[in-house]
Amino acid sequence: MSSDILNLFSEGLKVVNLGLESFAETLRAQGVETLQVDWKPPAGGDEKIVALLDRLSFRSRIDIDAANAEALSRILKAKPTLVGVGKALEVVPGMTEKTILHSGPPVTWERMCGPMRGAVIGGLMYEGLAGSRVEAEALAASGEIRFDPCHHHDAVGPMAGIVTASMPVWIFENASFGNRSFCTFNEGLGKVLRYGAYSQEVLDRLRWIETELAPIMAKALEAHGPLDMKNIIAQVLQMGDEGHNRNRAGTSLIIREFAPHLVRLVAKGEDPEKIARVLTFMHGNDHFFLNLSMPASKCTVDAAKGIEGSTVIVAMARNGTDFGIRVSGLGDRWFTGPASKVEGLYLPGFGPEDAALDIGDSVITETAGIGGFAMAAAPAIVQFVGGTPDDALAITRRMYEITLAENDVYRIPILDFRGTPTGIDLRKIVETGILPAINTGIAHREPGVGMVGAGLVKPPENVFKDALAAFAETYAND
Amino acid sequence: MSSDILNLFSEGLKVVNLGLESFAETLRAQGVETLQVDWKPPAGGDEKIVALLDRLSFRSRIDIDAANAEALSRILKAKPTLVGVGKALEVVPGMTEKTILHSGPPVTWERMCGPMRGAVIGGLMYEGLAGSRVEAEALAASGEIRFDPCHHHDAVGPMAGIVTASMPVWIFENASFGNRSFCTFNEGLGKVLRYGAYSQEVLDRLRWIETELAPIMAKALEAHGPLDMKNIIAQVLQMGDEGHNRNRAGTSLIIREFAPHLVRLVAKGEDPEKIARVLTFMHGNDHFFLNLSMPASKCTVDAAKGIEGSTVIVAMARNGTDFGIRVSGLGDRWFTGPASKVEGLYLPGFGPEDAALDIGDSVITETAGIGGFAMAAAPAIVQFVGGTPDDALAITRRMYEITLAENDVYRIPILDFRGTPTGIDLRKIVETGILPAINTGIAHREPGVGMVGAGLVKPPENVFKDALAAFAETYAND
Repeated sequence: MSSDILNLFSEGLKVVNLGLESFAETLRAQGVETLQVDWKPPAGGDEKIVALLDRLSFRSRIDIDAANAEALSRILKAKPTLVGVGKALEVVPGMTEKTILHSGPPVTWERMCGPMRGAVIGGLMYEGLAGSRVEAEALAASGEIRFDPCHHHDAVGPMAGIVTASMPVWIFENASFGNRSFCTFNEGLGKVLRYGAYSQEVLDRLRWIETELAPIMAKALEAHGPLDMKNIIAQVLQMGDEGHNRNRAGTSLIIREFAPHLVRLVAKGEDPEKIARVLTFMHGNDHFFLNLSMPASKCTVDAAKGIEGSTVIVAMARNGTDFGIRVSGLGDRWFTGPASKVEGLYLPGFGPEDAALDIGDSVITETAGIGGFAMAAAPAIVQFVGGTPDDALAITRRMYEITLAENDVYRIPILDFRGTPTGIDLRKIVETGILPAINTGIAHREPGVGMVGAGLVKPPENVFKDALAAFAETYAND
Repeated sequence: MSSDILNLFSEGLKVVNLGLESFAETLRAQGVETLQVDWKPPAGGDEKIVALLDRLSFRSRIDIDAANAEALSRILKAKPTLVGVGKALEVVPGMTEKTILHSGPPVTWERMCGPMRGAVIGGLMYEGLAGSRVEAEALAASGEIRFDPCHHHDAVGPMAGIVTASMPVWIFENASFGNRSFCTFNEGLGKVLRYGAYSQEVLDRLRWIETELAPIMAKALEAHGPLDMKNIIAQVLQMGDEGHNRNRAGTSLIIREFAPHLVRLVAKGEDPEKIARVLTFMHGNDHFFLNLSMPASKCTVDAAKGIEGSTVIVAMARNGTDFGIRVSGLGDRWFTGPASKVEGLYLPGFGPEDAALDIGDSVITETAGIGGFAMAAAPAIVQFVGGTPDDALAITRRMYEITLAENDVYRIPILDFRGTPTGIDLRKIVETGILPAINTGIAHREPGVGMVGAGLVKPPENVFKDALAAFAETYAND
């Protein structure tokens, strides 16, 4: 670029103007050959941050680029594989009968948002620990229940992300590195626990998932054998899904993958009507695949956790009160800021005044380079989250600015098969001021209502700056 | 445009140059303000054709635009619906035990290309009318067998398009206009009858389709009820399919639509292993949906047949020897020209020297505005047929130049949900010189081999000019 500008000078260019366009216009009006360069100061001119970036560039005691190369390599080599179905109490590490896992960074009952409280109420009733909303609220406030983030137990949960002891979970294993991840079964849209609803129909559906759907899918999976979810995600990106809020192709591929094995269960004594209900439920719920793409993403980025000196972001998550991130080189620390408002489309009868703030672990998909980062692969999603197909293309293109590489397996046909933007570099976010693009569902702000819409959301900028400051504190020499 | 040019003249423009760019360059070199306009003479300057177009414009005894509006309205209002499965002999009009239907316009045994001959040999052996290739060839040449285009029997067939009496067919009905269409079941890729293979494995698969797949799908369809295929096609265009050579989404949607009904058949006494085989076959064959998108397309455009004065093309088809079209206002006449070479990608071990010429009725999808016309919806298809995603976008955009409208149901997300180019106008093809874009499989030129590749093909230009001449003959006043 600089040599291009030198050439222009030799051709009569007099002034290169950085920044304010009006200055260039004034010069041009006076007949001075002027080149306007669209330049922004790093970190939006935030001197403190520029100083931090400088410290890390020139006085770091570790080779950040090498650490990030290792983190990236682990993300790219990850092989998220669906290996089983189990009961949370039995398979999720650290789970107890009185533990309730939730989405996002840690949060107390007192600070929980409406939909998360609603889902906790539903979870306690589902477990038989409370018989009513009032009882559940008292128990939740009593200190008897341990609330803990899903992320502290190798799990992820969409929206409120509530996991209780009896709930069945998908079990993933990273075939390259051995780490595991867990996620509940998707309940569908509308009045569902993860959006804060806890009526009888919600609890009945959860019970059906536990007693019929999960055991049947467990058997089908056993007959099928481990399922390479990386291959499935690669396919859905060529079929109009992005793996977060558009999952029609993913759900379809899961159905066709398991259907032959499901029908063979009948020969082993399973009731065909139960199998038909399982197939009908999946067919009627295009978000079924979300609870597979999420643990696949968790399983992928977890392989890059805890790498000394790496600025790669290995978790982003929201609990409806706070948005938090974790950085590979900074261990288990969360950096948090206030959860944002979601800009989006609302279901009939609802509007922005009904909306809870940004919530859920589903942003693990973006952390792994799909979801909002792969929106160019799923232009039809704008009918669900708002915007135009051009926006979807622009969002993906922008995410290349804050990531380390293009995925070598997840490719986007319309971008000439360019790989999805992968390996979010904290430094690049802070330097460019470009925030990770996230698409998301919107829950009603009150407990007990459910889903009201879907849209796009920006995380709070401070979490990235705070994490960078902590990183410099940890790794800079002075 | 013309007023824009006038404005430019008022601003000092001296010359508007149409056509040859070098003339404009010469003027510019002499300091003359020159605007280069990218203009081509209509019909490539073919005076005879320009005269025909003029005759139709100014001295036609009918209102072509009104006739085309009626044809277009019927195409847009069509509701192709899958209503049943039947045996060709029993449901296809005019079918007899010694009739063999083939793709494309009429062709005699003597003029048939290699893969069509191979498929006829296989068809006669499958029907028990011949015991060997030699016997089959003798019978085919004897005059005892009636060869007839699928299109003469409301049917369409991919590649060789062979339909014999015992073969099961999908039955479609246009819920808006009542017309029906028929198509066999897709056999998969590789060594299959429609690509000219006739070995025992090919015949065994056809028998399995007849005795197991078709009866089971017939029962599942009966339990499901009529399936609105227009809705399914609208969905697949948002899932990376174009309905001709990319059908992974379509096949997935069919599986999920029928899976619950298939499993319930077990309760009615069906063997679960047979159902599992059906589901496994569909799962293993992403072209399964082609034999549904084809009769859906046929059912759609057939509603626009026989409209007095309409220049809308209602059939394009190839038999591997000739390419032919039919025009709404010209009844059952075929206009034919030599089948073209396909430009494409070859399977390992094969090359252009192995390729048969363009063959099959599958171009009915393009005739209905999907397939090649909707390639922008399916950029990943270029991995199968060659080219780049930009080519796919450009192809769809070009097809708007030769069509009457944008489909109001079939929409392409990446083109900002623009409808697919629908209602091919013979006049526009001849006037612009833009030929319909077709993507297609490639068969081996010899009987008995099978598929060797896939690619893009241009139809012969003369068929459109000949049809226009016939149209003027029929409808012009002098």
